[in-house]
Amino acid sequence: MAWRIDTEQIEDLARGAALFGTGGGGDPYIGALLARQALASGPVEVLALEEVPDDALVLFVAMMGAPTVMVEKLPSLDEVVEPVRALGTYLGRPVTHIACAEVGGVNSTIPIAAAAALGLPLVDADGMGRAFPELQMVLPTLSGVTASPLALSDEKGNVAVLQTIDNSWTERIARVATVEMGCSTMIAGFSMSGVEARGALVAGSLSRCIEVGHGIAAARADKTDPVAAAVGLLGGRELFAGKVVDVQRATTTGFARGRARIDGDAGSSLVLQFQNEHLVAESDGDVLATTPDLIMVVEGETGEPVTTEGLRYGQRVRVIAAPADERWHSPAALAMVGPKYFGYDMPAHRFDGSVSAASASAGTLAGRETTA
Amino acid sequence: MAWRIDTEQIEDLARGAALFGTGGGGDPYIGALLARQALASGPVEVLALEEVPDDALVLFVAMMGAPTVMVEKLPSLDEVVEPVRALGTYLGRPVTHIACAEVGGVNSTIPIAAAAALGLPLVDADGMGRAFPELQMVLPTLSGVTASPLALSDEKGNVAVLQTIDNSWTERIARVATVEMGCSTMIAGFSMSGVEARGALVAGSLSRCIEVGHGIAAARADKTDPVAAAVGLLGGRELFAGKVVDVQRATTTGFARGRARIDGDAGSSLVLQFQNEHLVAESDGDVLATTPDLIMVVEGETGEPVTTEGLRYGQRVRVIAAPADERWHSPAALAMVGPKYFGYDMPAHRFDGSVSAASASAGTLAGRETTA
Repeated sequence: MAWRIDTEQIEDLARGAALFGTGGGGDPYIGALLARQALASGPVEVLALEEVPDDALVLFVAMMGAPTVMVEKLPSLDEVVEPVRALGTYLGRPVTHIACAEVGGVNSTIPIAAAAALGLPLVDADGMGRAFPELQMVLPTLSGVTASPLALSDEKGNVAVLQTIDNSWTERIARVATVEMGCSTMIAGFSMSGVEARGALVAGSLSRCIEVGHGIAAARADKTDPVAAAVGLLGGRELFAGKVVDVQRATTTGFARGRARIDGDAGSSLVLQFQNEHLVAESDGDVLATTPDLIMVVEGETGEPVTTEGLRYGQRVRVIAAPADERWHSPAALAMVGPKYFGYDMPAHRFDGSVSAASASAGTLAGRETTA
Repeated sequence: MAWRIDTEQIEDLARGAALFGTGGGGDPYIGALLARQALASGPVEVLALEEVPDDALVLFVAMMGAPTVMVEKLPSLDEVVEPVRALGTYLGRPVTHIACAEVGGVNSTIPIAAAAALGLPLVDADGMGRAFPELQMVLPTLSGVTASPLALSDEKGNVAVLQTIDNSWTERIARVATVEMGCSTMIAGFSMSGVEARGALVAGSLSRCIEVGHGIAAARADKTDPVAAAVGLLGGRELFAGKVVDVQRATTTGFARGRARIDGDAGSSLVLQFQNEHLVAESDGDVLATTPDLIMVVEGETGEPVTTEGLRYGQRVRVIAAPADERWHSPAALAMVGPKYFGYDMPAHRFDGSVSAASASAGTLAGRETTA
C-alpha cells in the first residue's frame, strides 16, 4: 500500500535505520538533517515493493565512502541528485523509482532526499536489510543485477560513470575514485526493472525502521526498557552490557576500520570488530555472532543506536544481535559477506551463536581432509 | 594535403615519435607492432589540420599509465577502440576524426590503430609536439578545451566515463582508476570541433616524426652521423655523449620516475631526471635544458631513440636538446609543465641553456624581494 513519508516520521526512521545499520551507514543525525531539508517542501510517496510496475526503472542512491569523513562533509541536495541525473542521461531513459541500497543512518535518508528533490516515488525496500561496507554486497548482486552503469559524484561537481565487468570491479574502481574525490561520494546504480527489484530486494525495510525506531521511543516514554523493546521487535537477543574501555579506529582505503572492547560488570568482556559495520562479536574466546547476522550497539539507558564512529571511552552500552534476511546465509552470499571475506578466520555464526549451515558444511569438508 | 599512412612508414614514424617522446610515450617497438597490425587491412587517411571540417568531432586517443607496465601488457585493437565507442555513445553523436594527444612511441601509433579499426581519418597533429606525463598537460587545456567527457577502458572490459570540473581533476581521477585497473588503460577524450583543434594542436607532427625518423635511417645508410642528422632536422643541439653509469627507477602512482647518470670521456657527467619523460638535464651543477624543451637520449652510434625504461648500465648514448612549441613557454604553460611543477627548484631553461623569458621574469620578481 502506498503511503507518504514526511518530516514527522524522520526521527523514528533515522533511529531505526541507525540500528539496522549495525554501526555503519553514517551518522543518523546527518541523515535526518538531510531528509528534513528535502521533505520541507512536501512529503515523498512510498510504494510497497509489490506496487512497483514491472517495467519501472528503479535505482539505488547512496553515499559511498567512510562515514567518519561524511560527518565533516555534509552533502547538499544538488550533490544527491547529480548521480541520478547523470545515470538517467547515460541510460537514455527516465529513472522512475528510487530505492535504498542499505539501511543505515545516512543511506536510508539520502534516497528520501533524492526522491524528494527529483519528485520521484521511493520504494519501501532496500538491497540488504542491514548495512555492509562494500558496494557489491547487496542481494541484487546474488540475483545477477549489475551495479553498472553506476554514476558517482562529489561536492565539487566531478562525475564518473562506470561500466564494469562485474560488481566487484565497480566497487574497486568506485572506491579508489571516491578516495581521490575526498573520501565520500554520492552514487546511483544497480538499475532494475520492477520485476528484478521484487526478486532481489528486502521488502518493507523503511516501514520496519520506522516501526523499530518508534518502538524504542515509545518504550522510553512508557518508562519500560527500550532495549528490550528493540530486541522484541527485531526477534533478536541481547548479547552483552557494559562499558566501552577501548576503541581502535583508522580510516584506511576509504573505510572506517577498527575494534572496540566493552567490559561487563561481572568481569567478562566483549570485543567487536568492525569495517564501517560491526562484523564480529566475541566474548572471552567465544564467538557470539558474526556477519551476515546483525550486531548492534545501543546506549544502555535510552536504546539509542551508536555508530562505530560514535563509540567513545566510558560509554555504557548494550549489544544486540538479530537475524539477517535468510538469503544472506546461502553459500554464495557467505562467500561475499561472511567473516572469512573480511579476514576473520571463523565460520559465520548466527545471532543465537549457532554456526550458519552453509559455513558449517564448508567447515566439515575442510575437517574431513585434515582427518583423512 | 590529405595523405595515407601505411605499414611502410611505420618504422620511420615510430623512430621519430620515440625521439619526440623525450624518453616517454611507451616502447616504440610495441607502438609499431600495434600500428602494423591495425594497418594490415589497408592504409589510414591522414588529414592536415587545416583540412579538418569546422564542425568535425575530433578526439584524442591515448594510452594512460606507466610505460614500464605496457611493455608487459600489449593492448589489443578491441581495447583501443572501446573508449572511443563509449565516448561516442556518451556524447550522442559520431566521432569524425582521431588525433594524437602527444608524440611518443605508443601514443603516436595507438591513434593510428584506433583510426584504422574505426575506419576514421587521422589528423596530422598532436596536443603537445612532444610527450608529457600527465593528462592535462596538452595545449588544448591552455586554450580552454575540456578533457571531459573522457572515457577510459582496460583489457578486462571495464570502462569509465569521467565528467570533471577541470582537466587536473580528470587527471587525478583517471590516474587512480588506471592504477586500480592494472596500471595502464586506453583513454579517449578532449573532444574538439575542427575550429578548436586548429587553434589548439601542433600541426604536422606525424609528418615531422616520419621526416626525422627517416632522416636518422638515411644518415645511417649513407654512413654519416645519424645523431647530427637528427639535431639538424630538430633545430636543436647535442648536449652530451657518454656511458650510462647509473639508473634509478621506480614505478609509483602510475608513473615511471627516476634519474640516470651518464659519464663523459673527459671526466664530466650528465644527470637526467625523468617522470615518464626526461625533464631536466644537468652537468656538473649547470642546468643544460629543462622541460618544456625537449631532452632526448639516443644510442651513440645508430641514433636510435632510447626510452627512459630502455636506459641500461653501460649503454653508449648521446643526449640532444631541441626547442618545444613556443606556446609551452607562456607563463600559464610553464605553471603547468615547467620544472617547478615537477618539484625541481629551478626556472625553465631552453634547449640552448638560456632561461625561458616567463621563468626569468618570475625569477626576477623573487630576486627583487630578496635584495629589497
